[in-house]
Amino acid sequence: MTRVRIDLFISLDGFTSTTGHAPENPMGEDWGRLTAAYAATRTFHERVFDDTSGNGTTGIDDSYAAAFFEGVGAEIMGATMFGLHSFPDDPDWKGWWGGQPPFGTPVYVLTHTAPRPSIPMEGGTTFHFRNAAIEDVLAEATEAAGGLDVRVGGGVGTARDFLRAGVVDHLHLMVAPILLGRGTQLWDDLPSLDLTHKVTTEVAESGTIHVNFAR
Amino acid sequence: MTRVRIDLFISLDGFTSTTGHAPENPMGEDWGRLTAAYAATRTFHERVFDDTSGNGTTGIDDSYAAAFFEGVGAEIMGATMFGLHSFPDDPDWKGWWGGQPPFGTPVYVLTHTAPRPSIPMEGGTTFHFRNAAIEDVLAEATEAAGGLDVRVGGGVGTARDFLRAGVVDHLHLMVAPILLGRGTQLWDDLPSLDLTHKVTTEVAESGTIHVNFAR
Repeated sequence: MTRVRIDLFISLDGFTSTTGHAPENPMGEDWGRLTAAYAATRTFHERVFDDTSGNGTTGIDDSYAAAFFEGVGAEIMGATMFGLHSFPDDPDWKGWWGGQPPFGTPVYVLTHTAPRPSIPMEGGTTFHFRNAAIEDVLAEATEAAGGLDVRVGGGVGTARDFLRAGVVDHLHLMVAPILLGRGTQLWDDLPSLDLTHKVTTEVAESGTIHVNFAR
Repeated sequence: MTRVRIDLFISLDGFTSTTGHAPENPMGEDWGRLTAAYAATRTFHERVFDDTSGNGTTGIDDSYAAAFFEGVGAEIMGATMFGLHSFPDDPDWKGWWGGQPPFGTPVYVLTHTAPRPSIPMEGGTTFHFRNAAIEDVLAEATEAAGGLDVRVGGGVGTARDFLRAGVVDHLHLMVAPILLGRGTQLWDDLPSLDLTHKVTTEVAESGTIHVNFAR
């Protein structure tokens, strides 16, 4: 059965996005600190850096990194994550991920702007652009996933929209042992997920705390 | 060497105090959920319930509960924690802890009200009332601790005052795997303790996440 999954990076003080965004630094100033343990994993080295020489950690962080890539049949993301807001006037913009994005599935990009044609990429990724209610996009993505999971990839605003709608089956938080002091608070005005989901916690060798909410 | 220590309960969404306080429920409505894993420990059963029949958990939560009671030579707490604000007109009020409080040390109660005489209690606890800067009270408590540690016991406002002043050597957070959605945010407008302290994380069998900031 298709589950709706979200994976988010978050700091000890609850901030899940970073400030200081700029075209040359689209994820913000603190993104490196927030994601350091994940970027250090062998899975990340292999899947994102294309580094198959055995570099990277192989502990608990890596097992979550590997699970991240497993069993996803379709992806949903917000316009900001795709970069539509950074390059609004470039009809040839194809996202931040180069010619062969790591998704390998249909990716539904939520947008309030005029529809644009779908973009097939190498490696199985096709970007579709949808100006529709998240429930409708989710239904389409679920159909496309063919029994696999649908991941809501981000950004934080999009993830919070899906959490607020109560449609997320599994939320995985990677809590970095750092304090950011600024950004977007993940939990502000969200329903109490611990009342509907089972919470489990685990600490990786890096000190990263993995918190899972699953129903 | 004397260290200044703070232990706090906090929820996954960063709330460290609870709402719905009332005279018959001085710690607030959610206090039981926030402290359930701690109250389940064998140490807590022995030290607070005076239950020596072997009840209670003996895992990681219990090791922290035991450490909580070790090596403390003096305590500092806010007026609210002592109950001065709940019973302002009762000169005979002696706190929430009965005739033999569990501290067994001098306890310095911070107050802005008129000074009142110290109250010696059974079991080694003496309550002193101080209307002074926290640095001055800390100096007096450190002297009284005789080389043992000084604990800042709470409440949250007092703990945050000491954290803001930069005088805390060891902060231990017990992060309950629950979402409260309301209350006081521990980290609001505090200095980034992770820049000055080493952060370690550990998950107990209960799912409680223990986060330590130590310098």
